[in-house]
Amino acid sequence: ERYSVRRLPFSRLSDGDVAFFERLMPGRVVTDPEELEPFNVDWLKSVRGCSKLMLKPQTTAEASQALRYCYERNLAVNPQGGNTGLVGGSIPVFDEIILSTVLMNRIISFDKVSGILVCQAGCILEKLNEYLEEQGFIMPLDLGAKGSCHIGGNVATNAGGLRLLRYGSLRGTVLGLEVVLADGSALDCLASLRKDNTGYDLKQLFIGSEGTLGFITAVSILCPQKPKAVNLAFLGCQSFAKVLETFTTCRAMLGEILSACEFMDEKCMELVKRYLKLSSPVTGSPFYVLIETSGSNTTHDEEKLNNFLEQAMTSGLVADGTVATDDKKIKARGTWFIWISLIHQMLWSLRERITEALTHDGYVYKYDISLPVGKLYDLVTDMRTRLGPSAKNVVGYGHLGDGNLHLNITTESYSCSLLDAIEPFVYEWTARYNGSISAEHGLGFKKKQFIQYSKPKEAVFLMQRFKAMLDPKGILNPYKMLPSS
Amino acid sequence: ERYSVRRLPFSRLSDGDVAFFERLMPGRVVTDPEELEPFNVDWLKSVRGCSKLMLKPQTTAEASQALRYCYERNLAVNPQGGNTGLVGGSIPVFDEIILSTVLMNRIISFDKVSGILVCQAGCILEKLNEYLEEQGFIMPLDLGAKGSCHIGGNVATNAGGLRLLRYGSLRGTVLGLEVVLADGSALDCLASLRKDNTGYDLKQLFIGSEGTLGFITAVSILCPQKPKAVNLAFLGCQSFAKVLETFTTCRAMLGEILSACEFMDEKCMELVKRYLKLSSPVTGSPFYVLIETSGSNTTHDEEKLNNFLEQAMTSGLVADGTVATDDKKIKARGTWFIWISLIHQMLWSLRERITEALTHDGYVYKYDISLPVGKLYDLVTDMRTRLGPSAKNVVGYGHLGDGNLHLNITTESYSCSLLDAIEPFVYEWTARYNGSISAEHGLGFKKKQFIQYSKPKEAVFLMQRFKAMLDPKGILNPYKMLPSS
Repeated sequence: ERYSVRRLPFSRLSDGDVAFFERLMPGRVVTDPEELEPFNVDWLKSVRGCSKLMLKPQTTAEASQALRYCYERNLAVNPQGGNTGLVGGSIPVFDEIILSTVLMNRIISFDKVSGILVCQAGCILEKLNEYLEEQGFIMPLDLGAKGSCHIGGNVATNAGGLRLLRYGSLRGTVLGLEVVLADGSALDCLASLRKDNTGYDLKQLFIGSEGTLGFITAVSILCPQKPKAVNLAFLGCQSFAKVLETFTTCRAMLGEILSACEFMDEKCMELVKRYLKLSSPVTGSPFYVLIETSGSNTTHDEEKLNNFLEQAMTSGLVADGTVATDDKKIKARGTWFIWISLIHQMLWSLRERITEALTHDGYVYKYDISLPVGKLYDLVTDMRTRLGPSAKNVVGYGHLGDGNLHLNITTESYSCSLLDAIEPFVYEWTARYNGSISAEHGLGFKKKQFIQYSKPKEAVFLMQRFKAMLDPKGILNPYKMLPSS
Repeated sequence: ERYSVRRLPFSRLSDGDVAFFERLMPGRVVTDPEELEPFNVDWLKSVRGCSKLMLKPQTTAEASQALRYCYERNLAVNPQGGNTGLVGGSIPVFDEIILSTVLMNRIISFDKVSGILVCQAGCILEKLNEYLEEQGFIMPLDLGAKGSCHIGGNVATNAGGLRLLRYGSLRGTVLGLEVVLADGSALDCLASLRKDNTGYDLKQLFIGSEGTLGFITAVSILCPQKPKAVNLAFLGCQSFAKVLETFTTCRAMLGEILSACEFMDEKCMELVKRYLKLSSPVTGSPFYVLIETSGSNTTHDEEKLNNFLEQAMTSGLVADGTVATDDKKIKARGTWFIWISLIHQMLWSLRERITEALTHDGYVYKYDISLPVGKLYDLVTDMRTRLGPSAKNVVGYGHLGDGNLHLNITTESYSCSLLDAIEPFVYEWTARYNGSISAEHGLGFKKKQFIQYSKPKEAVFLMQRFKAMLDPKGILNPYKMLPSS
């Protein structure tokens, strides 16, 4: 199959190696094949490695010693967080040692004046958010996998997610990192300052490097205040043109309180209903838009939202809709039903659990594309036409506000000829409109050979030089992200 | 003097070199010493170079050919934008060739749907903002030097400024860069997408690299919508403790519409009054706070601001104040005077023109420090005590919301012994509280030997390796930013 790759001449794990690690971190070395199984396969069950060893350091010093040993012995290493990645970047390809952040889950400090959180890389995103909420803050990122993904993995993959529209990317919110390099040396860039212009911003190179340049051990991140009011609107639109107009209208009318603008097509809705038994209060439209506002004043925010909704309804942008405001009152007005805040979760589930629903539909071909927002859905339509009945479902959803489409294609089982019909067509289509073939998922193992559709060869060459400089033996997450030089 | 440094063995400019450049860009090669003068000295007139040649390319291709030639001939090059830098980074130290962006001032494209601007590096910040305002957008950064600084220089120095609190740093808003490397090769990372995770984010290395890694030729940047309502409050506080409490109160009560929170001490106020004849509507307090809100709804924003001001007045945080709202009405209420929006500029001048006022007071020792916000003013007090009457003025002002203090010390003329009393004391003090010795100005020529107060030696070593990799002959802005390896 097309992902075939040859094992590089790294050393093979010996009994002596295992003994060394057992001494280094007693009881936190996994060699039992059954126990290793879930860490050798990705969440989508689409790729599989055969690592014989997983290490669970608790401290930076342990991670450092482990990597130094691997470097000296020429043993390949696969850094792993919550293993929720979608491009095969988080699991070994062959017998790489899995270096897991699972036990590095300590919160180091939180400063309520500045909103700066410092924690170990293995903290689970949702746990961090719960911790912060108690103190009146939230994490600047949120994504479907929040219940199991690690903050270190989020940073290593430059995760985008649902709050990017409002709080910006991790490149702005991550203030510092501590990283162990391939040779085991620890690099302390764990500054906790909003502004620091003393030399090159080294941490940026590790953000989004997918474990190929270093093992992130700690993160310093700027957290916004918890909004006092959060409102949701779930709307049905009769065409994608109306979806786009709904977006520009809500961006203009909701301004600074707009915190998410997501869309999904009716196929997505069908799948979350069928496989997850979720029900939607809004039905019968070819497209759905989820709009979230987050602000500091309930009355002001509701007024802004209501003005927008009235405009959207009277101008025919929106055919039907549900609003869930924070004010704990239940009102009914015309075709509008205003629900209590408890249904927020239910409304978000319709959008957040699409990925999960898709896995029940069969084998999934996943694409995560950045495009000019006006072109966003054309790719789905073109793909549907191109594949015809050979695909089970071709669906599109994603982050409208960020110009980020999740294109997913399902079949009963993996088919090589279908893949040939999809690729490189999907990448060529994306390149034609100067899009990105990976908006937020990264390249990992599955997409690395397509990087040239989004990056000129001079840039790829420079990346390879950075990799060679920081990891001259190439032991860190080999076979991932970059085409072999 | 302590900045003394020896010229490195670069080639000397020959008549043949000048002839080559004349052929490459006829009429845009400056060799006249008088014409060169303003580009050989920095804005503060604190450092001076003796370049014999300035080149003014109009295109990336020209910049590329010029650099390729310099690289082959081993001629050192000083990239220069608007020459508004404050650390001696923008002018030559010896006879480096000045490579100026002054004629690279073309706007390439602006997309009103996404808010993404693409332009050449020499566009003046204020001009860009004017261009955007006509289309309902603004630049995500604003600073005192806006009338002459170039966007390429802003990116090269990772400029912070007055809007960082609201729109975040350039690391999040700059979406793409085009850069010419030391050997003349052009690197195209000029993507115009909000999200793109295909490989390492190379452009980040050039943001804040102060011209030492490449010559930025074009910038792609995400611009926010122009706020519909902008309000200002200028407040007097009786102590720095009250300044801090004013900040936390306004952050909580103004939430998402807070766009700036600046402070200055009474010494600053004295200087802008004396030298620039500016008058302040609020007087008689030891500290002043300038608060700006930017939002999408005039009524809501004013209500939020008024609630905050009432709270600040009744709880005694604020002793006196002026508010300038956008609603074009003039009201008087108690000690409050509500002015029309035209006085916005006057209020901002009080803060923005402090730097200028200081230059009239004598020789200025400038420090740009990040600190935990609670410690921000202690450094000023300690320094004042330490220097006693040997300093003319010791003043503090800055970006409260970012934890960024501008500490300035003036004397009648440059004194070496005073400098010895200030340094390294100021850096040791900063390092003790894990601050940064350069929050936003960069290191340039004047601060490069102090980098170790904010960065561990492993990090500095890694920076030197990046520099050696990208510019093996070291021709780009030599003697700047990094200590010699």
